[in-house]
Amino acid sequence: MLGALSAASATLGHKAAGWVRTMASHQLLVPPPAALRKPLSIPRRLLLGPGPSNLSPRVLAAGGQQMIGHMHKEMFQIMDEIKQGIQYAFQTRNALTLAISSGHCALEAALSNLLEPQDSFLVGVNGIWGQRAQDIGERIGAHVHPMIKDPGSHFTLQEVEEALAQHKPVLLFLTQGESSSGVLQPLDGYGELCHRYRCLLLVDSVASLGGAPVYMDQQGIDVLYSGSQKVLNAPPGTSLISFSDKARNKIYTRKTKPVSFNLDIKWLANFWGCDDKPRKYHHTLPVIGLYSLRESLALLAEQGLENSWRQHQEATAYLHRRLRLGLQLLKDPALRLPTVTTVVAPAGYDWRDIVNYVMDHFNIEITGGLGPSLGKVLRIGLLGCNATRENVDRVIEALREALQHCPRHKL
Amino acid sequence: MLGALSAASATLGHKAAGWVRTMASHQLLVPPPAALRKPLSIPRRLLLGPGPSNLSPRVLAAGGQQMIGHMHKEMFQIMDEIKQGIQYAFQTRNALTLAISSGHCALEAALSNLLEPQDSFLVGVNGIWGQRAQDIGERIGAHVHPMIKDPGSHFTLQEVEEALAQHKPVLLFLTQGESSSGVLQPLDGYGELCHRYRCLLLVDSVASLGGAPVYMDQQGIDVLYSGSQKVLNAPPGTSLISFSDKARNKIYTRKTKPVSFNLDIKWLANFWGCDDKPRKYHHTLPVIGLYSLRESLALLAEQGLENSWRQHQEATAYLHRRLRLGLQLLKDPALRLPTVTTVVAPAGYDWRDIVNYVMDHFNIEITGGLGPSLGKVLRIGLLGCNATRENVDRVIEALREALQHCPRHKL
Ligand SMILES: Cc1ncc(COP(=O)(O)O)c(C=O)c1O
Ligand SMILES: Cc1ncc(COP(=O)(O)O)c(C=O)c1O
Repeated sequence: MLGALSAASATLGHKAAGWVRTMASHQLLVPPPAALRKPLSIPRRLLLGPGPSNLSPRVLAAGGQQMIGHMHKEMFQIMDEIKQGIQYAFQTRNALTLAISSGHCALEAALSNLLEPQDSFLVGVNGIWGQRAQDIGERIGAHVHPMIKDPGSHFTLQEVEEALAQHKPVLLFLTQGESSSGVLQPLDGYGELCHRYRCLLLVDSVASLGGAPVYMDQQGIDVLYSGSQKVLNAPPGTSLISFSDKARNKIYTRKTKPVSFNLDIKWLANFWGCDDKPRKYHHTLPVIGLYSLRESLALLAEQGLENSWRQHQEATAYLHRRLRLGLQLLKDPALRLPTVTTVVAPAGYDWRDIVNYVMDHFNIEITGGLGPSLGKVLRIGLLGCNATRENVDRVIEALREALQHCPRHKL
Repeated sequence: MLGALSAASATLGHKAAGWVRTMASHQLLVPPPAALRKPLSIPRRLLLGPGPSNLSPRVLAAGGQQMIGHMHKEMFQIMDEIKQGIQYAFQTRNALTLAISSGHCALEAALSNLLEPQDSFLVGVNGIWGQRAQDIGERIGAHVHPMIKDPGSHFTLQEVEEALAQHKPVLLFLTQGESSSGVLQPLDGYGELCHRYRCLLLVDSVASLGGAPVYMDQQGIDVLYSGSQKVLNAPPGTSLISFSDKARNKIYTRKTKPVSFNLDIKWLANFWGCDDKPRKYHHTLPVIGLYSLRESLALLAEQGLENSWRQHQEATAYLHRRLRLGLQLLKDPALRLPTVTTVVAPAGYDWRDIVNYVMDHFNIEITGGLGPSLGKVLRIGLLGCNATRENVDRVIEALREALQHCPRHKL
């Protein structure tokens, strides 16, 4: 074994002439960019928009750790812990539970694995997230049936039942926390109803998980996904997703391959140890992002779901009381999201002026509307460790000053 | 404006009964997982596999920074700097240049934007990356024509020309740094050749960028992508991609929408400020990952491409000289990758024993083969800040010991 060096390698120096020739016959025409010579400098911001939120200290520390390999046993351990953390956060025992990249990716993964071309797909569209689900469903070639309602409304059991009877969908999409309009969609009874019509229920809880109760198994939700960058206070770039046995069966018996290799749940399930085969390399996981996600799930488990829900409810109720400075709340209080609050954009102002004032003078982010609510509302998020009375006082103070100093237009 | 509180919000407490009722009628059945009570503990590893590599100190520091919003002007500035960094690293002036998630995502983005169903797609398959391109192309519904060669070989101009003439593809895929077999595919002349046949050239430089010369514009490459987790020493989860005007035109004149919303280049181009429209929210960017990517590109710009190429060439040539302890190098030296070295798995040993020994006794990662090279080779990567003589000495020492102590089987 310990013999002579393979003759070839000794001559690497001059036989590697291939790329040396390449260098000789070309020149660097694009110079190093001057902007990259400046040091990276990140301003301090209090993020009270609809997300992303600030990182909690333990999540921040995780982001500063060194790499390990995506196939090392310690990484598999972290992945297993993340799966358990998701199962707790979702209140599910589903084996097919894993993390994926952004919230949109989770939605696209759900749709491209559950829908085949020509499948009937029912979508609750009461804000931007339903619009996105509709767009993605159409690209996949499904027959999409949007139930369109104004931003600020939700879908009743009766409305859903009528649409199920009419369109006989294989899948229904609902958004639990409609962060563009501030609505909390009730979920009790919807799973059962769908199953009576042989339809699966897909729920987006990106903006509500940890802030409002969800019980995936008890509520009969077939696919649930959420994001890392809201209540969990982890960096964007990872999201959580889980599939019931019914959903799993639909995926494993589909006739066509999903059009995306990256989002193919069979591959991902194997990589995340959700089947009984040895794990095969699929793509390089965002290792550092997963450290952070693991820590954020550990914090939620330590706090306890019910305490987290209570914290958001209390902080947001306090915000609503303090908003008596006059900003009208958009929603029926029974349906208000305990994480992201929408207030009617104050008449006579340009909403951009207010948002910019609060940012420029207080380093606080609040935002305007999004999609159908654009121009109509301001949005204030109290997410995870940001959901405190102190932060409410800070943003109310900032808003009060903004309303005093921003230009008022004649109505 | 500063009038009375919207009557509704005063009663939030008891009118929010919707989700309070939900809580009352369900119970937490899944307890907080015990495994998440343990602190996160990341072992120190020297990552000398084919990637991911270790983070350089400045990249590590960037990962520990706090969040800002994905639509803040400072974030747009960072995105612009990343674009300029990619233009430098790729030696291109393409406006349509941006970052995306993993290397596989970049490949899928390229294929799903450039190919329409029924398009003819020519793929160089000399290892796993061509296999992946073939798989993704087939899912999209393209007519895929694989040029299949053994791992360890490359594609000559003549072979490519014959296939271009025969299959009249709209797109050719080649891998510059075939990290599963250790081959460096030459690129001079291929772009010109493709263009003569009205074909676009797509090149994977995930494992070679920064380690071997590439001149996107001068070499007539239409789409080039690379990863963050190799020579750049940044965390996995971001990748780099750029499109020539020819490629851009093909995308902007396609008849069908790409099947993926997440990878739709028109959306991404807008979000990354590559068109002249105001930026629209597409998805929440991996903010922290982009800090790290920005720093890694800044480091490459400071070092200079040619110095980086030289560093990899020298470190790898030194590795090849030190390998005279007897591990046969797989490749024709003129075609050896200056980043990832494949050596024939030593006869008489189980390659897993060697890999495990080096990990368990030295905390160094080297790996076995992947895809078609599985079981046949060991792979040693010298990537970015890991490409030093000291690291070569460490891994050679580890290998020497492993060969002494690992069980030898009768041949
Ligand atoms: C309810 C909801 N769904 C989906 C998303 C999309 O998540 P991402 O931006 O991570 O893709 C968001 C993000 O704001 C959201 O609030
Ligand atoms: C040459 C090459 N292409 C593509 C990839 C895939 O990149 P990722 O794992 O980030 O998806 C790799 C990763 O090892 C690679 O070496």
